[in-house]
Amino acid sequence: MARVYVTRTVHFNAAHRLHNPAKSDAWNRRTYGRCNNPNGHGHNYALEVTVAGEPDKDTGYVLDLSDLKRIVQDKIVDKCDHAHLNMDVDFMQGVLPSTEQFAIAIWRELENALPAGALHKIRLAETNNNSVEYFGE
Amino acid sequence: MARVYVTRTVHFNAAHRLHNPAKSDAWNRRTYGRCNNPNGHGHNYALEVTVAGEPDKDTGYVLDLSDLKRIVQDKIVDKCDHAHLNMDVDFMQGVLPSTEQFAIAIWRELENALPAGALHKIRLAETNNNSVEYFGE
Amino acid sequence: MARVYVTRTVHFNAAHRLHNPAKSDAWNRRTYGRCNNPNGHGHNYALEVTVAGEPDKDTGYVLDLSDLKRIVQDKIVDKCDHAHLNMDVDFMQGVLPSTEQFAIAIWRELENALPAGALHKIRLAETNNNSVEYFGE
Amino acid sequence: MARVYVTRTVHFNAAHRLHNPAKSDAWNRRTYGRCNNPNGHGHNYALEVTVAGEPDKDTGYVLDLSDLKRIVQDKIVDKCDHAHLNMDVDFMQGVLPSTEQFAIAIWRELENALPAGALHKIRLAETNNNSVEYFGE
Amino acid sequence: MARVYVTRTVHFNAAHRLHNPAKSDAWNRRTYGRCNNPNGHGHNYALEVTVAGEPDKDTGYVLDLSDLKRIVQDKIVDKCDHAHLNMDVDFMQGVLPSTEQFAIAIWRELENALPAGALHKIRLAETNNNSVEYFGE
Amino acid sequence: MARVYVTRTVHFNAAHRLHNPAKSDAWNRRTYGRCNNPNGHGHNYALEVTVAGEPDKDTGYVLDLSDLKRIVQDKIVDKCDHAHLNMDVDFMQGVLPSTEQFAIAIWRELENALPAGALHKIRLAETNNNSVEYFGE
Repeated sequence: MARVYVTRTVHFNAAHRLHNPAKSDAWNRRTYGRCNNPNGHGHNYALEVTVAGEPDKDTGYVLDLSDLKRIVQDKIVDKCDHAHLNMDVDFMQGVLPSTEQFAIAIWRELENALPAGALHKIRLAETNNNSVEYFGE
Repeated sequence: MARVYVTRTVHFNAAHRLHNPAKSDAWNRRTYGRCNNPNGHGHNYALEVTVAGEPDKDTGYVLDLSDLKRIVQDKIVDKCDHAHLNMDVDFMQGVLPSTEQFAIAIWRELENALPAGALHKIRLAETNNNSVEYFGE
Repeated sequence: MARVYVTRTVHFNAAHRLHNPAKSDAWNRRTYGRCNNPNGHGHNYALEVTVAGEPDKDTGYVLDLSDLKRIVQDKIVDKCDHAHLNMDVDFMQGVLPSTEQFAIAIWRELENALPAGALHKIRLAETNNNSVEYFGE
Repeated sequence: MARVYVTRTVHFNAAHRLHNPAKSDAWNRRTYGRCNNPNGHGHNYALEVTVAGEPDKDTGYVLDLSDLKRIVQDKIVDKCDHAHLNMDVDFMQGVLPSTEQFAIAIWRELENALPAGALHKIRLAETNNNSVEYFGE
Repeated sequence: MARVYVTRTVHFNAAHRLHNPAKSDAWNRRTYGRCNNPNGHGHNYALEVTVAGEPDKDTGYVLDLSDLKRIVQDKIVDKCDHAHLNMDVDFMQGVLPSTEQFAIAIWRELENALPAGALHKIRLAETNNNSVEYFGE
Repeated sequence: MARVYVTRTVHFNAAHRLHNPAKSDAWNRRTYGRCNNPNGHGHNYALEVTVAGEPDKDTGYVLDLSDLKRIVQDKIVDKCDHAHLNMDVDFMQGVLPSTEQFAIAIWRELENALPAGALHKIRLAETNNNSVEYFGE
């Protein structure tokens, strides 16, 4: 028995704005700086989805990557690509789109679409220099 | 005498929307697809600015890269980073922000801020897979 | 009037073998070394296709990248991806699949599928450290 | 006492074919799609080998990277580079060369060639977007 | 409650020399090879600093990345960039600048400058192919 | 007849110091800033050597890349890798090691070691964001 971690990376391009509507405009400007710009800004997001499990003895796969690719496409990329996270994405309504909160929201979307216990990690990079990881804990 | 080409790469994150206001909504949707999304989307832009010339016999530099860096920061990055190209950037007002038109606009901003004839090329990448080059011709 | 160069990068994974059937086995082994291995080897090829022209005054595009993407997909990627260049690819029959000859063959496939004079450059990378460029000259 | 993880990355170019000989041709085509192409396809594999341990108090090294490099070269790269995994590589005979199974096989080759307990992780990337990790568990 | 890991990557360029003054010149040459060159050599170091914690319910941040960036700049980059690690960097005096020891030294500099328990990992890459990770254990 | 441009990329790690001995210390500090640090600093240099020509009708190669690799190794990498450019490299004696001057010096070393007229371009990158190109003109 062997436990292998399999990662599929996808990319999408989206706009967002960091703004907490429960706080004053001054608080938002002070807290988020340019990320609070009213007209938004954007990123080429890189999303790595890692599933873990034992390779199937017939296929040699932990999970067929074309299945994983389709699920991530349906649940995340089709909704987020060329969209504004705050306004256009159903699962981000009412969620502050920091990279941290966005990664947690992606985990929740994917967790139930994958076999129970398969999802191991979400890594979400906003730029080449800034990224977050979430393990569902 | 030797002619050397020196390139400085900078990055900024911006939102934009492809929409030609002289055309119908239907034309815009058909032409630009998801890039016409009313709420915009965004990119991590990579901008390469290439200057050409003979290295100075005292400094060994074609141009001090810290000068080039400051000029690109002032003229382009400070205006475009964490901004919406259509709404927030002075030199993009009335310009359709395709990568092609954006690169031409950047050339025009930089050309006069640099020594005469120094600017050789603008390369602007919207994603790792899509980029344009402009030589001022 | 402005001339802009637009580049689309695509990736495909293929096997190949360097072997000149007009030469002896000894010549082939001496010339190509491990690249002559009878069972072939393979690469993740990165193909950059550059077209040049004036941005359209309505669309702001030199060429709609979704059209360019579709043409490159039909003419090159669908034929070469997950294939053996020597055995499976129609336009490589009788062509020694060095990176140089492969790039020239790709140029010939794309040249007539694109608007006259639009194709400017093919850049084909076999690895991160080895690549060729061809301008149709 | 400090535990440090040291990673060396190497690259090799190989062909492979996903095909389970215990199953029908129809099953193989349905399961593996283009990866079942009879003539094979190929990749530029990136292999990361991570060893863990306490830095030696004289050398400051967990393991001399030139030793690690030589072991990985002898045991893996010299056998796999410019080879067909299914046909040319001794330790892949009878192993279905999915990335998962290939990573497990590499772990087994390296584990005994390294000091006891030193090997911590194998990361094997088939493309920039697909990779697996194996920790020997 | 959710635990998220946030990573900021910074770059700096430094010279160093591997030389253990408690050992003979012959030992040093044999052990370090070209890394023992008396005049030193250098690298573009990439440093990844990972902090872990629960996103703040108001800001959505584990830690404001501009704070993390400032701390890493003050404690590490301003001291190491364009410097010689053996001669110019206060926290490397008396430390053999192997990547392992350098990463441990960076951990110690950052640990106390960050909120208690926030620092999770240091990843330090000397080249694209050689890197170490340290978790403070 | 077809003209193809073939590029081989190599990497080496070196220290250097920007200092013009014909000028005062004050001039050097003002001109070069931290690059004038007396103890030097360093880089992972990436060197791209491009040769141009017609593919040989027997081999399909413009130039055997293993020959090009060997020449670049002998003339440049073996001299510069893990060295201090100002003190250890014969062809850099008396040359101010700006990226511009270093690229010109590399051109001169390679030009005569390659077939007449074969060398087309040197591209030398000091970091991911700073690079120069020289065409021998």
